Amino acid sequence: MPPVSPRVLWKLRAIRGVVLDADGILTDGTVLYASGGNGKSFHIRDGHGLVLLRRLGLSLGIISGRASEDLERRLHELGVDDHFLGVREKLPCFRELSGRWGISPEELLYMGDDVVDLSVMREAGIAVTVPEAPFAIRRSADWITRAGGGRGAVREVADWICFLRTGDASFGFSGIDREDR
Amino acid sequence: MPPVSPRVLWKLRAIRGVVLDADGILTDGTVLYASGGNGKSFHIRDGHGLVLLRRLGLSLGIISGRASEDLERRLHELGVDDHFLGVREKLPCFRELSGRWGISPEELLYMGDDVVDLSVMREAGIAVTVPEAPFAIRRSADWITRAGGGRGAVREVADWICFLRTGDASFGFSGIDREDR
Amino acid sequence: MPPVSPRVLWKLRAIRGVVLDADGILTDGTVLYASGGNGKSFHIRDGHGLVLLRRLGLSLGIISGRASEDLERRLHELGVDDHFLGVREKLPCFRELSGRWGISPEELLYMGDDVVDLSVMREAGIAVTVPEAPFAIRRSADWITRAGGGRGAVREVADWICFLRTGDASFGFSGIDREDR
Amino acid sequence: MPPVSPRVLWKLRAIRGVVLDADGILTDGTVLYASGGNGKSFHIRDGHGLVLLRRLGLSLGIISGRASEDLERRLHELGVDDHFLGVREKLPCFRELSGRWGISPEELLYMGDDVVDLSVMREAGIAVTVPEAPFAIRRSADWITRAGGGRGAVREVADWICFLRTGDASFGFSGIDREDR
Repeated sequence: MPPVSPRVLWKLRAIRGVVLDADGILTDGTVLYASGGNGKSFHIRDGHGLVLLRRLGLSLGIISGRASEDLERRLHELGVDDHFLGVREKLPCFRELSGRWGISPEELLYMGDDVVDLSVMREAGIAVTVPEAPFAIRRSADWITRAGGGRGAVREVADWICFLRTGDASFGFSGIDREDR
Repeated sequence: MPPVSPRVLWKLRAIRGVVLDADGILTDGTVLYASGGNGKSFHIRDGHGLVLLRRLGLSLGIISGRASEDLERRLHELGVDDHFLGVREKLPCFRELSGRWGISPEELLYMGDDVVDLSVMREAGIAVTVPEAPFAIRRSADWITRAGGGRGAVREVADWICFLRTGDASFGFSGIDREDR
Repeated sequence: MPPVSPRVLWKLRAIRGVVLDADGILTDGTVLYASGGNGKSFHIRDGHGLVLLRRLGLSLGIISGRASEDLERRLHELGVDDHFLGVREKLPCFRELSGRWGISPEELLYMGDDVVDLSVMREAGIAVTVPEAPFAIRRSADWITRAGGGRGAVREVADWICFLRTGDASFGFSGIDREDR
Repeated sequence: MPPVSPRVLWKLRAIRGVVLDADGILTDGTVLYASGGNGKSFHIRDGHGLVLLRRLGLSLGIISGRASEDLERRLHELGVDDHFLGVREKLPCFRELSGRWGISPEELLYMGDDVVDLSVMREAGIAVTVPEAPFAIRRSADWITRAGGGRGAVREVADWICFLRTGDASFGFSGIDREDR
């Protein structure tokens, strides 16, 4: 299977904004409970991917079912200001971002990994998920990344968008297998 | 091998309560020792699985050989009130839950990953373990999940129970291989 | 390849004490540096393995090149009192344990994963290492566990010792592949 | 494929200094955000590899795009004094190390895992990366280690350098597959 289908590549060219779930996408889904506090691990290359997208002028947003100060701090560092944390229904947030940015849902890419993400995945122009996502999510996705959540999945998407925008192949392309080189 | 045997599916329809060991099932078995404190990592999709089960009206309980404030905090967040932490003998706790809930052991599912879990696994209606569990445990289990402990194993069980109860296939089905889709 | 060679099994019956390196054996080799402090992750089933060995009357010791309060705390919980932490030369410590316990090196099993462990591995009755250990260590080992360091390797050794001592197959046997069941 | 190509081995003999990126090379790329602080995990065998290189008289340096007190503390413990943390452009730092040490870039080995490392990788005598690095980085590398970042990749490089310098095969050789022994 080629890393990304022609249909996804075609739609990817028109994407003007990227909206992400946090746990399971920007992280591997695990939450540390330690000494009364909490923690999550983010991947440095994913962060760099978001910076690359922002530089290209794409709008970036996060919709997370779980509120977390550490997530907020990470997003602040990466310059992602549009975020909804601790929400129950994701679709209204997605629509609000769409309106706020003046970008139609069809021009937005959404990445999620659980059933609460399904409604947004159906509305977004491109729905992306990670390989370890449950069956029902993978079945509803246009694109399943090769890298796992919190392990470069977001960067993989960012690399393809950057390549399509700039024609510059010096991006990472985490999504290409070692055999392909 | 099909993800779940017909015999397990048959018994799974009658399950009215789920009892879990904590370390190795809700976590991957590792305990962080840091700066005088401790910590454990839980998976966000497992937590969602427990919430789904509770909504369907199933009783939920935890029996853990190790006491931990972080585990207690996680269980409180998920609304799992029936728990025994720091116990030596698990079978009496299992029987007490059975009596407290008015549910026969035959209608309870138990998930564990070590020799201290064997006595409960023999008494429960369905005994489940994780793929990385030792030989003696796997041999005694009716069902070995595909996802590892702390990596979606509990969610895999929850998805199947939810599907059998509701006929709604929009659950996660972490237990279905990527090849199956 | 059978999980353990007949020669190792033969020698394993005579083992009266177990001495372990800490980082890479009781842990996966990673050390967390966070907020000015440090941390390590231990596996709950490894801990149970050490408890099983102690109950059978075996002597237990730790020789670690790195001092760590968290390691000390873990060892205290498990009742492992004979430990040398922050040592440069491991062989003198090994010999001191041998003398203290009145057990010849030939009756001691040692587990290590780096070049500083080689001198002890050559003197111990059985030298064990983990699959991710470097080439020179694996070449010098009598037995390479299937489970990784910090992921059940110590429990795998403990299960085999317990089985040989008691004939009771209800131990974990982490060392047996899923295919073997 | 042999673990290291003859061409790399040939150039490796002349290496007098080693310069490393930190995140993704000395770590697996994940950064823990917990309770308002941060953390990273380092591997104990990687640290030992740096100590071995220093004993052989090689110069050691770190160039990291991200500043971190925990990284500084780790480097201090390992005796790596030449480091640039929180830099945007890596090439000027690399050239400054080259000048400071009086070692030409051709005699320096550089390990990195992202696009910000490419300019240095092109200038260094040997460019090394890790197997999980993105496509564009792997394509530009002379050598892709077998061990992952933060899981022994640095030690793998150190073992080969030590072996070539001393002819002593008692180093770790993390880079040799289990099948090779």
